[in-house]
Amino acid sequence: MPSEDYLALQERMGQVKDLHSALGLLSWDQEIYMPPKAAPARGQQLATLAATAHRMFTDTEVGELLKRLGAESSLTPDESKLVEETRYDYERATRLPEAFVQKFTEERSKAYEAWVRAKDENDFEAFRFNLENIVDLSKQKADLMGYEGSPYNALLEDYERGMTAEGLRPIFSELAERLGRLVERIVASDRGPDTRWLDADWDRDAQWEFTQRLLRDMGYDFEAGRQDESVHPFTTNFDLYDVRVTTKINKKDPFEAIMASIHEGGHGLYEQGFLPSDRRTILAEAISLGIHESQSRLWETIVGQSPAFWAHYGDILREAFPEQLKNVSNDDIYRVVNRVRPTLRRLDADECTYNLHIILRFEIEVALIEGDLKVTEIPELWKEKMKQYLGLDVPDDARGCLQDIHWSHGSIGYFPTYTLGNLYAAQLSEKIIEDIPALWEQVEAGDFSQLLHWLRTKVHHVGRRKGPAELIRDITGKDPSSEAYLSYLEKKYTELYTL
Amino acid sequence: MPSEDYLALQERMGQVKDLHSALGLLSWDQEIYMPPKAAPARGQQLATLAATAHRMFTDTEVGELLKRLGAESSLTPDESKLVEETRYDYERATRLPEAFVQKFTEERSKAYEAWVRAKDENDFEAFRFNLENIVDLSKQKADLMGYEGSPYNALLEDYERGMTAEGLRPIFSELAERLGRLVERIVASDRGPDTRWLDADWDRDAQWEFTQRLLRDMGYDFEAGRQDESVHPFTTNFDLYDVRVTTKINKKDPFEAIMASIHEGGHGLYEQGFLPSDRRTILAEAISLGIHESQSRLWETIVGQSPAFWAHYGDILREAFPEQLKNVSNDDIYRVVNRVRPTLRRLDADECTYNLHIILRFEIEVALIEGDLKVTEIPELWKEKMKQYLGLDVPDDARGCLQDIHWSHGSIGYFPTYTLGNLYAAQLSEKIIEDIPALWEQVEAGDFSQLLHWLRTKVHHVGRRKGPAELIRDITGKDPSSEAYLSYLEKKYTELYTL
Repeated sequence: MPSEDYLALQERMGQVKDLHSALGLLSWDQEIYMPPKAAPARGQQLATLAATAHRMFTDTEVGELLKRLGAESSLTPDESKLVEETRYDYERATRLPEAFVQKFTEERSKAYEAWVRAKDENDFEAFRFNLENIVDLSKQKADLMGYEGSPYNALLEDYERGMTAEGLRPIFSELAERLGRLVERIVASDRGPDTRWLDADWDRDAQWEFTQRLLRDMGYDFEAGRQDESVHPFTTNFDLYDVRVTTKINKKDPFEAIMASIHEGGHGLYEQGFLPSDRRTILAEAISLGIHESQSRLWETIVGQSPAFWAHYGDILREAFPEQLKNVSNDDIYRVVNRVRPTLRRLDADECTYNLHIILRFEIEVALIEGDLKVTEIPELWKEKMKQYLGLDVPDDARGCLQDIHWSHGSIGYFPTYTLGNLYAAQLSEKIIEDIPALWEQVEAGDFSQLLHWLRTKVHHVGRRKGPAELIRDITGKDPSSEAYLSYLEKKYTELYTL
Repeated sequence: MPSEDYLALQERMGQVKDLHSALGLLSWDQEIYMPPKAAPARGQQLATLAATAHRMFTDTEVGELLKRLGAESSLTPDESKLVEETRYDYERATRLPEAFVQKFTEERSKAYEAWVRAKDENDFEAFRFNLENIVDLSKQKADLMGYEGSPYNALLEDYERGMTAEGLRPIFSELAERLGRLVERIVASDRGPDTRWLDADWDRDAQWEFTQRLLRDMGYDFEAGRQDESVHPFTTNFDLYDVRVTTKINKKDPFEAIMASIHEGGHGLYEQGFLPSDRRTILAEAISLGIHESQSRLWETIVGQSPAFWAHYGDILREAFPEQLKNVSNDDIYRVVNRVRPTLRRLDADECTYNLHIILRFEIEVALIEGDLKVTEIPELWKEKMKQYLGLDVPDDARGCLQDIHWSHGSIGYFPTYTLGNLYAAQLSEKIIEDIPALWEQVEAGDFSQLLHWLRTKVHHVGRRKGPAELIRDITGKDPSSEAYLSYLEKKYTELYTL
């Protein structure tokens, strides 16, 4: 029987989670259904709820409960973990003074508006001052949070616990070098797929039905979730049994919605997969953005861009679009979803080039936070690195360093988790193929049950019980690294492009 | 320049309103988009938010601000009104001890579950015990809130400020008598409309488009609101600029969605019509449910069931359903939307019989709260009164006293506001016809701008500045009464049924 203190902490944390769920719904609605004139009111509602949740969490009573529970010896392992994780969050939340949080929130909101304008008008100078503020505040935040090694580590910690700039550098440099070589060889080859058949009208309803079917086949529980449409696809959850994904339908390219649905579906399965017994507790949460992204990318790229997948779903897609696909084989589809071409925009990037976009951003972020780079120098450095990594000339900042929303949101340290997600996904999939020898036969039959069961028991059920690197090590026996990812890509694209 | 205390009160109340807006969105989503398994989590989220909002509002700091502001002489009239209304709510909110509120909430939740079962299984006995608890708690609530005259008045106050059982009795008895006579004459006549053409399939999308058009024509602002589908149509708002209505589409009867959309549209226009300068304050709220209902019923019945309305929209509906309406005239439609027939269910009732359902419920509620009726005696009394008022034999309790959700929700004192809405609507419309002589020509042209302007300036802009009876008196020069309503109905149906 848990102690009174433990139950009090659990209930208080449950209430904080309820408020965060309400915040989540307000944001979900804002992206999808809210009428436009409601924006100012929604901003106030979000601010009030966030402040209320923060106050409820950082209350000194929580600190006292945590202190007393730290001395309690009769806790079960799960109870200890819950106390430990709550303490971790509590200490981080109380390290930033309320005035600083307020200031940061205001600056982010100003920076976001400036960024929208600057991007629209291709005018970096209109964003420079705000970005300087964001960088300064991020440095202050690092000092307030504390760190060892690079101050960047304090920021990274919010997104990928335990990961450091020092740990990322060797992984990313190996990756940059070998990806660069791979992309060069692909670009030099003349074996790109025929994409002319894509040039057609792809009915919206048929696309929608196909993505709904994919989610169902993947094991996404529509009794505990739903899919909607939004401008930028995302996943959010307000409970283990209320996980929502969105997709984006493009009448000119069906693979945009298909890949978005599989990607968000992977995120959604993670969030539907926490242990029911952990419901409404901190343990039923993603351990890091990198692990979260590993789940979406594993489904999207390793499964959804595999020949086995399209051997099955190519036929089904052809039933949905008989006219458009009458002369297109499943292999043609497989080739098109895997076509490689360096792009200026990260969001248009493919499996091979994507991480080069991330590495570029990581290097700029670290230099900014470590004080080796001025904000004014970003545009030039961006251009240099785009040339170096992707061989592209950046025509303007709108298509260069102004393309991403992240910095205007104050999210410095976020980008590396995208690449870590890819690396983890490849490491996990090596182990999956070992554990499920019939994996590709199953995928070719549209049967993902064994794969999902593997992910559920090895990854999803863990929730916040293990850190990201620990989780990867425990499952694969190896530290996070780029090796699995690079051999996966090199093998796949050498075959695809007959390099 | 408002005082510091005033600004502090305003901001605190704004935050309470933000939390209520979040509650509203959680409920809206629950009815429309929430996946089924999320129900328990949503219940907890609603409970946490409601408790948080209640704590924030009933904080002693609010009481102190109100006390200091009561002594402040420099307030503008609007500031005084805001303070006064906040004090009214504060005093009512603090009169119920937290333990009582908690107990009531729990009993309501149990009563609701028992009611669902009892109704499904036509077993009043399965609900009796819970209803007894609700009645007991309602009596206790009346004692805690305080009242003059009937204890029922304390309950009525929550829905229709200032209204009393003593005030309602003469109005309702006049209404019962004359409505009873009117319905008898209609039933005895053989001039009912031909409804055979209704028996067709009515395309969902075409119905949807038609209701969207109606809302637009009425002046409903889709930039500050939206329409969705739900099982029971309703209106909710999370801000002056975020007012949402729902409708219900029935493939077998297009007038269900049409009338629901006009009705909810009337509610929605009221909520979109508060003064922008009152935004996020208590003044931008409906003064009572009766006034709210007057807005929905004015649009639904007085406008939407008028010959002028169907002279215009009959043609438009025929364009949407050319096959189904090819031999149906606008007058045929007008006759069908106004057909009268006594029904067992309140929700199936027409303009003439509807209020008889309400009067029956009012009489039972008052007798329960004043201690003249036992819960066990409800089924028999219900049957007697249905025979007396509507000439119908009630075959079972599921179609009798178990049909409504209200009592299981603890909402005793709510029903009379439906009838008051009808009476107010008729009183207002007499004045409108006087002030806008070209009203029916405008309606026949689908032009509601002058009508909406009238409602905006006379009713909507007032918000909570006047009580319901005061508002009706100020606009019409008369006390709330049944006279206008009865003469409207008697004239309309004498013509329609050539009585």
